[in-house]
Amino acid sequence: MSSMEVEQMSHPERVFDATKACIVRVLKKTKKLSKDDPRRVIHSLKVGLALTLVSLLYYIRPVYDGFGVATMWAVLTVIVVMEYSVGATIGKGLNRAFATLLGGSLGIGAHQIAELLGEKGEPVFLGVSVFLLASGATFSRFFPRIKARYDYGVTIFILSFSLVSMSSYRIEDIVELGHQRLSTVAIGVAVCLCVSMFICPVWAGGELQELIALNIEKLAAFLEGLSTLYFAENDGGGDVSKEKKNLLFQGYKSVLNSKSTEDALANFARWEPGHGRFQFKHPWNQYLKIGTLTRQCACHIEALHSVLNSDNQALLDIDDNTRLVLYNLSSESGKALSELASSIRSMTIPTVVTSFASDALGATIALDGLKVATVASLLIEIAACVERVTGSVGELAQKANFSTATAHGAMHGASVNPDPTEAAEVVVVLTVVD
Amino acid sequence: MSSMEVEQMSHPERVFDATKACIVRVLKKTKKLSKDDPRRVIHSLKVGLALTLVSLLYYIRPVYDGFGVATMWAVLTVIVVMEYSVGATIGKGLNRAFATLLGGSLGIGAHQIAELLGEKGEPVFLGVSVFLLASGATFSRFFPRIKARYDYGVTIFILSFSLVSMSSYRIEDIVELGHQRLSTVAIGVAVCLCVSMFICPVWAGGELQELIALNIEKLAAFLEGLSTLYFAENDGGGDVSKEKKNLLFQGYKSVLNSKSTEDALANFARWEPGHGRFQFKHPWNQYLKIGTLTRQCACHIEALHSVLNSDNQALLDIDDNTRLVLYNLSSESGKALSELASSIRSMTIPTVVTSFASDALGATIALDGLKVATVASLLIEIAACVERVTGSVGELAQKANFSTATAHGAMHGASVNPDPTEAAEVVVVLTVVD
Repeated sequence: MSSMEVEQMSHPERVFDATKACIVRVLKKTKKLSKDDPRRVIHSLKVGLALTLVSLLYYIRPVYDGFGVATMWAVLTVIVVMEYSVGATIGKGLNRAFATLLGGSLGIGAHQIAELLGEKGEPVFLGVSVFLLASGATFSRFFPRIKARYDYGVTIFILSFSLVSMSSYRIEDIVELGHQRLSTVAIGVAVCLCVSMFICPVWAGGELQELIALNIEKLAAFLEGLSTLYFAENDGGGDVSKEKKNLLFQGYKSVLNSKSTEDALANFARWEPGHGRFQFKHPWNQYLKIGTLTRQCACHIEALHSVLNSDNQALLDIDDNTRLVLYNLSSESGKALSELASSIRSMTIPTVVTSFASDALGATIALDGLKVATVASLLIEIAACVERVTGSVGELAQKANFSTATAHGAMHGASVNPDPTEAAEVVVVLTVVD
Repeated sequence: MSSMEVEQMSHPERVFDATKACIVRVLKKTKKLSKDDPRRVIHSLKVGLALTLVSLLYYIRPVYDGFGVATMWAVLTVIVVMEYSVGATIGKGLNRAFATLLGGSLGIGAHQIAELLGEKGEPVFLGVSVFLLASGATFSRFFPRIKARYDYGVTIFILSFSLVSMSSYRIEDIVELGHQRLSTVAIGVAVCLCVSMFICPVWAGGELQELIALNIEKLAAFLEGLSTLYFAENDGGGDVSKEKKNLLFQGYKSVLNSKSTEDALANFARWEPGHGRFQFKHPWNQYLKIGTLTRQCACHIEALHSVLNSDNQALLDIDDNTRLVLYNLSSESGKALSELASSIRSMTIPTVVTSFASDALGATIALDGLKVATVASLLIEIAACVERVTGSVGELAQKANFSTATAHGAMHGASVNPDPTEAAEVVVVLTVVD
């Protein structure tokens, strides 16, 4: 403190300015984070609320007399279990509650065996059993399935077993202790679940659906931008600023690295009870499949993007026929993806399903050069990707009982499927001009 | 238990068989996991050891008399702080220790203010301060930088503040309680750090380096396999089984999704002290940059792979001249990547740095068709990627003081750089036959 005061005395203004700049920066960042997603603020307040609720256990005399120091387990539980989404909170809460029950019971069992072994045998037996159980449980975390869903539970299991069995060496009424601890953990979990589910809930399932739709939209934006800027008749490529191009063509990059987020959201979503249009056994895996196909498509777009970046001139010299083919290919792919994204978001059966005559296309392109051929070829691959995504979304629509689309869904000039029961399989051939 | 027994009575053999099959499956999986990486078993035993060490606090009378029930914080700390890599353990341990100190001190401060407010004001003030602090701290976790390095610390900060300030309402000597808790947490962290660092340590930095090298090697395997199977003179493509092809060409796929692992390892590595050839300020960011370029290259390979998959016939009809160009392009790219991987692994300055004459190449290829042109074009893009990776590895070699290569490093027929100080910039033109 005193050294800081000395520092302040020697250059008071500089320190003041630096501190002020720092505070301003943090405030600006805070404002941006809150504005980008106001649910962040709500989540923070929810954590505060849950903690304040559970702290009442301390302040109300008769309750505290019942639980004593075990009250702190309720507080501890709320702080570590409360997560951003409902699914994550339920997953952690159930893991914590059941692992406490199981670990605690085993700990009491170990205590009762240890008691039979006399004064000297007791700590040795307890030590060995803690060692074996902790090692075994830790190893189980390397199993991918346990890692994905029960990682937290394994930690709490080791924790409960160790604390109960070790404490039993020093504390008389270990069953009472275990009982108190379990009750307070249960109270903590219950408070978390209620606050998480009933006050502005954030459902991981909804987040996953939105992320998948958003990623598809980002690819659509790239393809539609590509068709307008590079292949449109008025040769739009020349008069668009480089910044605008970069902006339009950077969106897809985040799609490439979305796998871990999608996997995490799907894991959380599996813990969530049915709500709104999401049933309990909603086909979350299908979302992951669509996500994988979307990333594959993004990969092709990445390749296309670097081919385009490496030399723009080659594309300016192509003849009108080729240009038109490429225009149609990219703009129809983009539109199809747009449609798919909005059909996922509104959970309606996709009515526009494209089939690009890609094989025919290869022959019709006048090969103006290596680059054009590559662009064409990659666009054909992208179109094939779009078809796969379409098929996968159709499968999702079936599995998740999407409703039939409203008239809005068919705005891009393709035929609306008259029979909703067959909708997922309908294929409308968009004729690519040749 | 009794319902299970009834079940067992009605079809004892079936249940027995199913249980046996399940146990056998788990054992097999256990064996595989241990064999794939024996360090998993060592890590599990290390966790057991650390826990047993800290449990001595319970069994040795004078120690337990000093800490009392606070002993459990040492146990709890060991269980949650002990992680697979040294860096992760240090990160969590330091987060836990400092957050406990900070949160506990603030909690004692809040208690002293609360005492001035009288019987009724105290719980209200404590409740409000817990609410505000928990909400604020939770919000801070949305700042990406805090999330990456101090997420666990923020949780423990809220926890310590809440527990200390709330307990202070019921417990007389809160300073003594805080002191005991801090000491036991420090003991737990110390035990974790010692066991983690001094018994078969797994350094996150080393893991990151190995992952980066392995990923580059996977791409190299693809490109070398491609040159042999598709473009070799003896037309090897025909007589190789589809399974072997698939095996060879699937490796790169895991590279596409490695970003989150790399980011996590780099975060852990930053906590690690200097050890062996890794200094404290080792340029971990450069590894991430190489990782990003590697993924970009993998993306191009993904595009190339699906172009190849869509029609193999097109590649069988190409003329010998084109075949040779493509052979050189892919095999040299593959060799360059191989070299880079081994130079990263051995931390020697890369001596083989390739510069593909890609522009000249485009003109020399007889365009046998759309597909060949695309393959050629993508290979050129991949070669450009390889050059970028090479540049990035060169940068790493400078920043991380890689040593000069031994003769082994230059086995692929390219010139060895005579002056080690300029090595990172050396470019050896591998002439692509035209």
